[in-house]
Amino acid sequence: MTTLYGYFRSSAAYRVRIALNLKGLAYDQVPVNLVKGEQRTEANVARHPQGLVPTLETDDGVQLIQSLAICEFLDEVHPEPPLLPADAEGRARVRALAQLVACEIHPLNNLRVLKYLVGELGVGEEAKLAWYRHWIAEGFDALEGMLSREAGTGDFCHGDTPTLADLCLVPQVFNAERFACDLSAYPTIQRITANCRALPAFRQAAPEAQPDAR
Amino acid sequence: MTTLYGYFRSSAAYRVRIALNLKGLAYDQVPVNLVKGEQRTEANVARHPQGLVPTLETDDGVQLIQSLAICEFLDEVHPEPPLLPADAEGRARVRALAQLVACEIHPLNNLRVLKYLVGELGVGEEAKLAWYRHWIAEGFDALEGMLSREAGTGDFCHGDTPTLADLCLVPQVFNAERFACDLSAYPTIQRITANCRALPAFRQAAPEAQPDAR
Repeated sequence: MTTLYGYFRSSAAYRVRIALNLKGLAYDQVPVNLVKGEQRTEANVARHPQGLVPTLETDDGVQLIQSLAICEFLDEVHPEPPLLPADAEGRARVRALAQLVACEIHPLNNLRVLKYLVGELGVGEEAKLAWYRHWIAEGFDALEGMLSREAGTGDFCHGDTPTLADLCLVPQVFNAERFACDLSAYPTIQRITANCRALPAFRQAAPEAQPDAR
Repeated sequence: MTTLYGYFRSSAAYRVRIALNLKGLAYDQVPVNLVKGEQRTEANVARHPQGLVPTLETDDGVQLIQSLAICEFLDEVHPEPPLLPADAEGRARVRALAQLVACEIHPLNNLRVLKYLVGELGVGEEAKLAWYRHWIAEGFDALEGMLSREAGTGDFCHGDTPTLADLCLVPQVFNAERFACDLSAYPTIQRITANCRALPAFRQAAPEAQPDAR
């Protein structure tokens, strides 16, 4: 059985849940509570050398880390429906949109970074929120520009079916909403997110729908 | 002609230079001076909506952003020599190693983030260096663990030819050296870096070998 070691509010685990659901793959979930520090237990570090989530364990017992690498693996092993377009230029656009979120927004705002800001640098609550919103705004400004101007955009980030870009976008929007970021300047992001959330694969992957959500 | 808009010390541009060199592709370089703020000019934002580098402009005039997306594009359009192994599990490992650097270390330590720490949060020089070294150490600890323990490692991060993982590793090591990080705990990272640096494709991509290096 495929097993996902994750956490209901982890963006990276959320991306993998969407991918598994879009592919129609069954999987067990084992929660690793990031707030309680369970990611640093010996058991979790044995499966994820960084002491993070998610880890995907395949039917064959192979353990995979890093959410985008896991999603590309799933797309290669289970090609239907595809998470990337067929043409190299389209694939590059989708990967760039995904990486804009995964390499430029999310790494700056995840739990371990916010903890360092508060614990090591003595940053107060207001400044922490400003940091969070700054990186969301900087990333979403660029993303909205690309999505609103480029011909590749359709009902979803690229064309009219969900891709790797959408499964990065929606968890990032969830985070932005959780931190009460103003999203009114991003109508295209909001339109695409609404289209995604209308699909069962995205709804069933949402944090509030997970067994470890409270 | 293929044109790379980059900056000699940008890790992301450095990755793309290595990929272009490994593929044996000729390219022009147009420097965008990040220290002088040239990334925010209208001309650069028109080609890179985030106002960053690198942008790769192909022979056909297509502009691509995000270094890993660019490298995967080059690998798809110019398959030899491959930057990813042939098997899905190996590809997932290489992408995970690359993303460990590109999504977990580098985003926290790039210029715009260090500027925010100093300019907005009033972080001093010592604390800025501690921040830098903290994320290098956390990432390299995990990377060294994976590279030293896993059977996939060879002369390079995966097997005996360079992959996407090596072209993320070497620029990150360059940065770590520039900030005088202690790398003595990472013998496997050092061994692989030395093997990479022995290759002309890596040497010719090094920051000090670029036209805009001073």
